Amino acid sequence: MPGLGLSAMSRMMQEIGEQPEALRRTLRAEMGHARAFRQFARGRQFRMIVLAARGTSDNAALFGRYLFELTTGIPVSLAAPSTYTLYRASLDLQETLMVGISQSGESTDVNRVLRAGRRQGAYTVGITNQPRSTLARIVDDVFTVRAGPQRTVAATKTYTGQLLALYLVASGLGPVIRIEDVARIPDWVEQALTLERPLTDLVERYRYMRQAVAVARGLNYANAFELALKLMETCYVVAERFSSADFLHGPIAMVERDLPIFLFLPPGPCHDTLASLLRKLRSMHAETVAITSKGVAVPPATRVVRIPAAIPEIYTPIPYIVPGQIFTALLARAKGLDPDKPRFLQVITKTI
Amino acid sequence: MPGLGLSAMSRMMQEIGEQPEALRRTLRAEMGHARAFRQFARGRQFRMIVLAARGTSDNAALFGRYLFELTTGIPVSLAAPSTYTLYRASLDLQETLMVGISQSGESTDVNRVLRAGRRQGAYTVGITNQPRSTLARIVDDVFTVRAGPQRTVAATKTYTGQLLALYLVASGLGPVIRIEDVARIPDWVEQALTLERPLTDLVERYRYMRQAVAVARGLNYANAFELALKLMETCYVVAERFSSADFLHGPIAMVERDLPIFLFLPPGPCHDTLASLLRKLRSMHAETVAITSKGVAVPPATRVVRIPAAIPEIYTPIPYIVPGQIFTALLARAKGLDPDKPRFLQVITKTI
Repeated sequence: MPGLGLSAMSRMMQEIGEQPEALRRTLRAEMGHARAFRQFARGRQFRMIVLAARGTSDNAALFGRYLFELTTGIPVSLAAPSTYTLYRASLDLQETLMVGISQSGESTDVNRVLRAGRRQGAYTVGITNQPRSTLARIVDDVFTVRAGPQRTVAATKTYTGQLLALYLVASGLGPVIRIEDVARIPDWVEQALTLERPLTDLVERYRYMRQAVAVARGLNYANAFELALKLMETCYVVAERFSSADFLHGPIAMVERDLPIFLFLPPGPCHDTLASLLRKLRSMHAETVAITSKGVAVPPATRVVRIPAAIPEIYTPIPYIVPGQIFTALLARAKGLDPDKPRFLQVITKTI
Repeated sequence: MPGLGLSAMSRMMQEIGEQPEALRRTLRAEMGHARAFRQFARGRQFRMIVLAARGTSDNAALFGRYLFELTTGIPVSLAAPSTYTLYRASLDLQETLMVGISQSGESTDVNRVLRAGRRQGAYTVGITNQPRSTLARIVDDVFTVRAGPQRTVAATKTYTGQLLALYLVASGLGPVIRIEDVARIPDWVEQALTLERPLTDLVERYRYMRQAVAVARGLNYANAFELALKLMETCYVVAERFSSADFLHGPIAMVERDLPIFLFLPPGPCHDTLASLLRKLRSMHAETVAITSKGVAVPPATRVVRIPAAIPEIYTPIPYIVPGQIFTALLARAKGLDPDKPRFLQVITKTI
């Protein structure tokens, strides 16, 4: 990514910059696999999809939840790992597609869910960065994210790589997602990366931000979770995340001038309800930051971050998280923190 | 509820105190209905359960998610309303039980999800406080919560009433939940109400709390969401909520002395993993408040709130939220706020 004269660019920032190439690599390597999966899936009748993941990968799963329901008509459930690991409940998962997502492939709980799922009748697919991991060995089929080694705690290129893999799986399950369209995503991510300079200016304003809210809806809902998680783990900002509708059911009461709301505002079916929330927040004198793209109407907001590319809503989630990633990496630096070494954390967290 | 000489007890506090009687009323009125539902459900083969709700009712749905999977073996999905309302996707819901939860029964989005679900093949059950509401009219079967009129914005007795109704539905779907056991819950709630005096002392410490985290796992996970929502809407505390496992995957990095962690610590399968988190938090010098009951081993915590009754884990969620409700109502008062009139909110919020 083009240098900005930062004396020491963080690894996080480097990995953010690697995303267009990482996405293209995954696409090239898994395109044929996606077509083969499509052939296979035609012969199966999946009545349900269960997604299993933790941490950043769980945010990817939240995206997958919307993507699969909207493009395949198959109802989706996000697995509650404790059901399988702590309570050891036995579920009926006949005719179910279970998708497990883990960067390392060594997430104890996700692997236990996949093993139990397979025993209980599910066909299991793994999405991982590590083709030789435990996860890759125990599933029926594996989509490998070619993001290259993740050397930071804060996942960026593996998150967008997982989203890309979910598009590939979805392309096999229904007619809506076409690989030719998915192939345009890396270019849009490149456009998003050009926002580094304006974002460098923007973070100055948030040097003393201690709490924040991220809001989105539908396909970008997962990005609200992902932006909040990045703010929590690298900037120690207490960051909430809500769908715009849930936000109105109570949490909006806590809005004050010092609680900025970051809002993902794509075109398409969710636009009007989000724009209306933005107007309401303005009337409440709240500080708002809208993340959007070319051609989208944005009501007055305190700040607007606009990707200089027109992107169809269904393909916005990967490019839209990129300004959030850059913002977080730069804000950590502005706060005097090292985004590559969050306190108390390691790259791989094992939980049950 | 026994007076403490407060010159003006809030309506919220009154409604908290009404819970044992409200729960008994619902139980008496719906017990026969639950048995009839059991007969009906024996003749159906539900392969999936979809829950639809917003706000506090959505927290009840989150509880239902665990309860149904653990006691019936049927996989559960929490509906994403935008899938139905904004994207208007068509899902295949044959052999699906859809449960919609709404205090008022006039939640636009929940009703739209139920209407769409029914068109798409689901058998629909409603849980509402209002037997003459739109929701009650559009579903195949309705369980009425007899909580009496909710006169506050912050739902308390309707939340526990919805949890009770979910136990009744679960008793019809599998052998684990027995109505005789459910009938013991109101007594445990009475025991929880005796904590009002120690909680009055406890809130003094949190007068200046501006942010907090609520943590739980499994059946009590919903209570972490519910406690956080109460803190947000009545005390304007920026309150996060996590499963203990998700908390370890990133958010734990934001822990500081001024960010107290409220942790639900029941007996049973989730106890050890939660106790281990409590020990870890202590080693990080975090402030912790453990909510637990008689007979549960609790590692050192900054404060412990213990219900003076031994409660089997599966029946802890209703009594365990009660100290959280009391704490919130009292904290609002200590902060000089009126818990009955949160800014920007009404009892019924309509969203799509």
